[in-house]
Amino acid sequence: MATLTNAIPEKTIERLSEYRRTLLSCHKQGITHIFSHVLAGIHGITAVQVRRDLMLIGFSSDTKKGYDVQVLIQYISNILDSPTAMNVAVVGMGHLGQAITKYFNSKGLKLQITAAFDVDPDKVGQTIDGIPCYHMDSFETMVAELDISLVVVSSPTKVAPDLVVPIINAGIRGVLNFTSTPLNFPQGIIVENYDITTLLEKVAYFVKENDNNT
Amino acid sequence: MATLTNAIPEKTIERLSEYRRTLLSCHKQGITHIFSHVLAGIHGITAVQVRRDLMLIGFSSDTKKGYDVQVLIQYISNILDSPTAMNVAVVGMGHLGQAITKYFNSKGLKLQITAAFDVDPDKVGQTIDGIPCYHMDSFETMVAELDISLVVVSSPTKVAPDLVVPIINAGIRGVLNFTSTPLNFPQGIIVENYDITTLLEKVAYFVKENDNNT
Repeated sequence: MATLTNAIPEKTIERLSEYRRTLLSCHKQGITHIFSHVLAGIHGITAVQVRRDLMLIGFSSDTKKGYDVQVLIQYISNILDSPTAMNVAVVGMGHLGQAITKYFNSKGLKLQITAAFDVDPDKVGQTIDGIPCYHMDSFETMVAELDISLVVVSSPTKVAPDLVVPIINAGIRGVLNFTSTPLNFPQGIIVENYDITTLLEKVAYFVKENDNNT
Repeated sequence: MATLTNAIPEKTIERLSEYRRTLLSCHKQGITHIFSHVLAGIHGITAVQVRRDLMLIGFSSDTKKGYDVQVLIQYISNILDSPTAMNVAVVGMGHLGQAITKYFNSKGLKLQITAAFDVDPDKVGQTIDGIPCYHMDSFETMVAELDISLVVVSSPTKVAPDLVVPIINAGIRGVLNFTSTPLNFPQGIIVENYDITTLLEKVAYFVKENDNNT
C-alpha cells in the first residue's frame, strides 16, 4: 500500500481496529475499564506497544483503573471511521465472497457490505445473506446508484485483471483484493492485496525458523 | 507474531512468497528472464525494494537480461520451503474453510491441505473438495496419524477459544487464525491472527486519509 504523509502507520491502524473489536466485546460483557497490559495480553503483544499505539493517536487517559472502555472505543472510532458511512461491494460471490459477507455484516460495524456482483446466472438477481447480487455488466451503474466506495475482490484469480478497468471507471476508492493476482491502480485508489497463500507460507516459514532455533 | 532472531523480516517473507507466485506464472508462460523493475511494477512497489529483498536472501545475479526466472524460483523456494513437506488442516469447513481449501490446493504448492475438521454431522465423514473431513473429537489422533504441522482456523469466532487446548495438545506448530478472536499460544507455536474486518477497516482508513490529503 502506498504510504501517505501524516497517516498513522499501517500496523498501528491494524492494531487499533483489533483493540476496538476487543473493547467492544468487553463493553458487551459489562467491563468498564481495562489495563494496557490486559489489552496487550489478549493481543499477544507488550503493554508498551499498546501504550505507544494509543499515544500515537493522542490518547493517554490511563487511570488507576486502566482505560475507560467506552471512551477509548469512541476515541479509536473517531480515528478509524469516516464521518459518513462507506458502502462496500463484494465482487465474486463464491465461497469466499459469501464467507466475507456473512462474517462482516454480523458485526454491526460502520462499514457495511451492501451489494454483491457476480456473473453466475444462479446468483445474479438473488439475495444472498441479505445482500442483493447484481450482474457485473451493471457494475458501474449500480456503484453510482448505491454510492459504493470500497470493493472486496473475491472473484476467481483468472478474472481479477479484467476488474481493474470497471473498478477505476466506477470511481471506487479502495480495493481489498483476495485473489492471487496483485492488482495495480492509479494513485488515488487504495489497494490491499491479500493472498491467503502468502499468509500460510509466512506461518510455515516462521515454524521452520523456530525449529532451527530450538 | 513473535519475532525471531536472525529470521528475515515478516514483510520480506510476504513479498518473497508473492514474487515466487509471479515468477511461477511467468515460467508457465515461457518467460525466462525478468527485470527487477518489471517484478516491482507487477507488485506495485519500487525496484529498489525488490533488489533489497533479494539482497537480504543473498541473491544478486542480476544480469543484462534481468533475473533468471527459474533460478530465482529455486532460490526463494530454498528460503521459504521446509525440506520436508508440511501438512495443513483446516478447522471449520464453512464457506471460508471451503474457499481456502479449494483455492490453496489448486496451486500445486508444497504446502498441502490434507485434512479438515468440523462438528457438523453433514460434513463429518464426507470428502469436501478432495479433503476428508473428520470430527473435532478425533483432532489429536488424526493430527498425529496424518503428520499435520499447521492449522488454518476458519471456525465460527465463538468456538475459536475452545480450539487452543486441542491445538497445543496435538503438537501443532503453526496457526493461521481467521476468526475475530485473537488466539494466544505458548512460545514455540507460531500464530498469525488475520481478521478480515481489520483489513477492510484499514483500507477504509487510508481511503479517508487519501481524501483528506487531496
